[in-house]
Amino acid sequence: MADPRFFTRAGPFTAAELAALSGARLADPARADTVAVDVAPLDAAGPQSLSFFDNPKYRDRFEASRAGICIVHPKHAARAPAGMTLLLSAAPYKAYARAAKAFYPPPAATAGIAPSAIVDPRARIGAGTAVAAGAVIGAGASLGQRCRIDANAVIGPGVQIGDDVAIGALASVSHALIGDRVAIYPGVRIGQDGFGFAPDPSGHVKVPQLGRVVIGNDVEIGANTTIDRGSGPDTVIGDGCWIDNLVMIGHNVVIGRGCILVAQTGISGSTTLGDYVVAGGQVGIAGHLTIGAGARLAAGAGVIKDVAPGATVGGYPAIPIRRWHRQTVALEQLVRKKERP
Amino acid sequence: MADPRFFTRAGPFTAAELAALSGARLADPARADTVAVDVAPLDAAGPQSLSFFDNPKYRDRFEASRAGICIVHPKHAARAPAGMTLLLSAAPYKAYARAAKAFYPPPAATAGIAPSAIVDPRARIGAGTAVAAGAVIGAGASLGQRCRIDANAVIGPGVQIGDDVAIGALASVSHALIGDRVAIYPGVRIGQDGFGFAPDPSGHVKVPQLGRVVIGNDVEIGANTTIDRGSGPDTVIGDGCWIDNLVMIGHNVVIGRGCILVAQTGISGSTTLGDYVVAGGQVGIAGHLTIGAGARLAAGAGVIKDVAPGATVGGYPAIPIRRWHRQTVALEQLVRKKERP
Amino acid sequence: MADPRFFTRAGPFTAAELAALSGARLADPARADTVAVDVAPLDAAGPQSLSFFDNPKYRDRFEASRAGICIVHPKHAARAPAGMTLLLSAAPYKAYARAAKAFYPPPAATAGIAPSAIVDPRARIGAGTAVAAGAVIGAGASLGQRCRIDANAVIGPGVQIGDDVAIGALASVSHALIGDRVAIYPGVRIGQDGFGFAPDPSGHVKVPQLGRVVIGNDVEIGANTTIDRGSGPDTVIGDGCWIDNLVMIGHNVVIGRGCILVAQTGISGSTTLGDYVVAGGQVGIAGHLTIGAGARLAAGAGVIKDVAPGATVGGYPAIPIRRWHRQTVALEQLVRKKERP
Repeated sequence: MADPRFFTRAGPFTAAELAALSGARLADPARADTVAVDVAPLDAAGPQSLSFFDNPKYRDRFEASRAGICIVHPKHAARAPAGMTLLLSAAPYKAYARAAKAFYPPPAATAGIAPSAIVDPRARIGAGTAVAAGAVIGAGASLGQRCRIDANAVIGPGVQIGDDVAIGALASVSHALIGDRVAIYPGVRIGQDGFGFAPDPSGHVKVPQLGRVVIGNDVEIGANTTIDRGSGPDTVIGDGCWIDNLVMIGHNVVIGRGCILVAQTGISGSTTLGDYVVAGGQVGIAGHLTIGAGARLAAGAGVIKDVAPGATVGGYPAIPIRRWHRQTVALEQLVRKKERP
Repeated sequence: MADPRFFTRAGPFTAAELAALSGARLADPARADTVAVDVAPLDAAGPQSLSFFDNPKYRDRFEASRAGICIVHPKHAARAPAGMTLLLSAAPYKAYARAAKAFYPPPAATAGIAPSAIVDPRARIGAGTAVAAGAVIGAGASLGQRCRIDANAVIGPGVQIGDDVAIGALASVSHALIGDRVAIYPGVRIGQDGFGFAPDPSGHVKVPQLGRVVIGNDVEIGANTTIDRGSGPDTVIGDGCWIDNLVMIGHNVVIGRGCILVAQTGISGSTTLGDYVVAGGQVGIAGHLTIGAGARLAAGAGVIKDVAPGATVGGYPAIPIRRWHRQTVALEQLVRKKERP
Repeated sequence: MADPRFFTRAGPFTAAELAALSGARLADPARADTVAVDVAPLDAAGPQSLSFFDNPKYRDRFEASRAGICIVHPKHAARAPAGMTLLLSAAPYKAYARAAKAFYPPPAATAGIAPSAIVDPRARIGAGTAVAAGAVIGAGASLGQRCRIDANAVIGPGVQIGDDVAIGALASVSHALIGDRVAIYPGVRIGQDGFGFAPDPSGHVKVPQLGRVVIGNDVEIGANTTIDRGSGPDTVIGDGCWIDNLVMIGHNVVIGRGCILVAQTGISGSTTLGDYVVAGGQVGIAGHLTIGAGARLAAGAGVIKDVAPGATVGGYPAIPIRRWHRQTVALEQLVRKKERP
């Protein structure tokens, strides 16, 4: 089980309750009252555990598991050990994620403003919102309901934040409009000046950055990631994006819905990503490009041209991934040939 | 116009005033009294807007623009729409940057020390300087005039800061001497220990880091960038450098004047950059190298050798950029040849 | 000498004392009383300086040095200038590191809790520990003896910290167990949620992250580095690891003893590193890999396969380093051939 110093467990839940919570279907209604007290992986689960089986690579573990309740795809149900209560789902990992959240709900912060927080009297704080010790909230900022502002975070003047938003410890947000159910992790920087100046040997001249950062709903932004505000247009992050740690998003970048940006990726100014783009770790994307919807950028790719919708690219400079793989092989053969003349 | 929740607009300004502010020249003195109330891009500008035309790619927009006042290069003046008041400049973007700053001056912080800031009594705070809520300033630190220390920033003991310096929210500065008109963005880390130790299987032994970080005038340092202090010599950032977000500068690095380092670039210890070096995003530079003045390092370059003054390199490992481009083409052809035998 | 605004010098020390402090051996016992008042590099050292000679490249400087006391390998002793007091060591740099630490011990923080720190009454603070201004310490957190928590750092509920640990300004630590003598630099993020979700076009579903970060003894973690907590298993950092700035360590990563990770390296989730692995700057390692003990990953390497113990790899994708070098040469020749037909 999870370390009780850090996690508070809810439950127990019956199989019927877990079916409802997870969106899965109970295979055998007679098992509706089977009880789970915790979640566990297949090989550690016991009769009172909820587990799940999704990756076919772990079929052996599934067949040997002692889990009392298990979420599985219907096509694998026949392989379940005798006595296991099955919850059937076309998307077992997703169903498990929901059930696990029921066992370990995000910790509820005590609503209210900590005595050491500094909240400008002209800020608006919604009902049920918690502002932790040392947090600073500027004039005209507006926070929705049930938000959680962690210790020493800084929310600048005029920032608009929706409901159920979590701002991590020591994060800073300025010049931004943020939707509902957004999670901003510790140390994130949102809304600072973009990298905009007129280069000049006698001294580069700063160009005022007059846009904002606009973030949709259900977005996650990883630790120490930075998102600069627009220079005139806005920097925009669409609904449902997941952004990992130490990512850099430049000014005027526009990102569609549901994009996934893995750690240390960087997107230069004024580039646009369509919906559901996936960038592996340490991807770099040059400025003023268009990355089509559903494109996939392999980890480490250095993207210097537009990418068509649905295309997969890799390499530096990035090219269609199959071609990149062929180049890798060709280069390998070139060296082998030289070695054995 | 810029969102008034975040930006306060000054003006209006006459064409004559804008000429003076921007360093441009009024094409027709009879138009000196034309008034602009805001800035706008060519296609959104109206009769009371100031705009600019620099990139030839947007000539159509210039010719169709309704901007009341426009900053242009003299060679394009003849193409201006009838009725437009022209400000002539050999560097229109630079002139525009200055004018835009007049419309949107950096927000003035209220001078003084916020009640919740913790300023050591042995620190010296110059006239007109603002220290925001939760900021912490150590013993012997000295801040010049008209500085702005944002919320929860931490200035360590003994740090020396010039005039008109902005330290962003949640930034930390220690062991550093900083010039005038420097902007340090939120979350920047300056002056912590460099990565110095004697490697040893029985336990790496830390080497005391006894140098400082010395930063010139007119430097910008982007969000969450880290600059380690020297190990004995200093880490030095020259006048007028622009450093983007999430850049890493190791101990003893010496950077000349006016260098531009784009986001996520990393410079290993004891490397020297001459004046006006430009590094694209995600460049990596090995330690103990010399990068000559005016050198240009393409985005993603992995630099493991010295680079001559004025040279342009790219690739991993980095080589002269034309050669790298030829290699990219040759590799492409190698694969094509195999595909069509 | 080091700038006295930032560093407080101890000493002077006699050669005998320095031998004891550094683990070196006095070459001539008659010189036991030679005194050094400071450390200095070979070329700047004077009769009252302690210096060291390790890198053969600097032999000329050694032979010309005026250092009163010098730490050298016994094999170089014969080349010392007349009158120099020699301390002999098989590992001169390591011995120097220890001596330098005696001259410049880490600054002692005043034990106790600053009035503006916010320490939960259910936290436990060991004897001799200093909690600086604005630091926030949560319920159930436990700090050992002689720790130093710098300004505005945030320690979450339940975090367990050993003795002699330094937590830098504005760092955050949650869901973590930390050993003794660990140094966490400013802006480090430890223990936040890993990047775990079930991808789904109708909305990615977050998977609760139920593990911890477990850090051994004698670990250094550089500025603005991020270490996510495990998803169920823990994220583990072994004893004696040195981790540089802006490194990203994903959830469930397990790192052995004495590993060295240079700046901006990223390790994806569930990857394991054996003992004494060295990763150069900007290395990327894909998820679910095993990197064998003693493996070396060249700067910029993009590692997408397991690496054998003791192997050295480079390139993108990473391959054995000699092969990578040969490919680099082959590619160069391919272009040359085209140029001179």
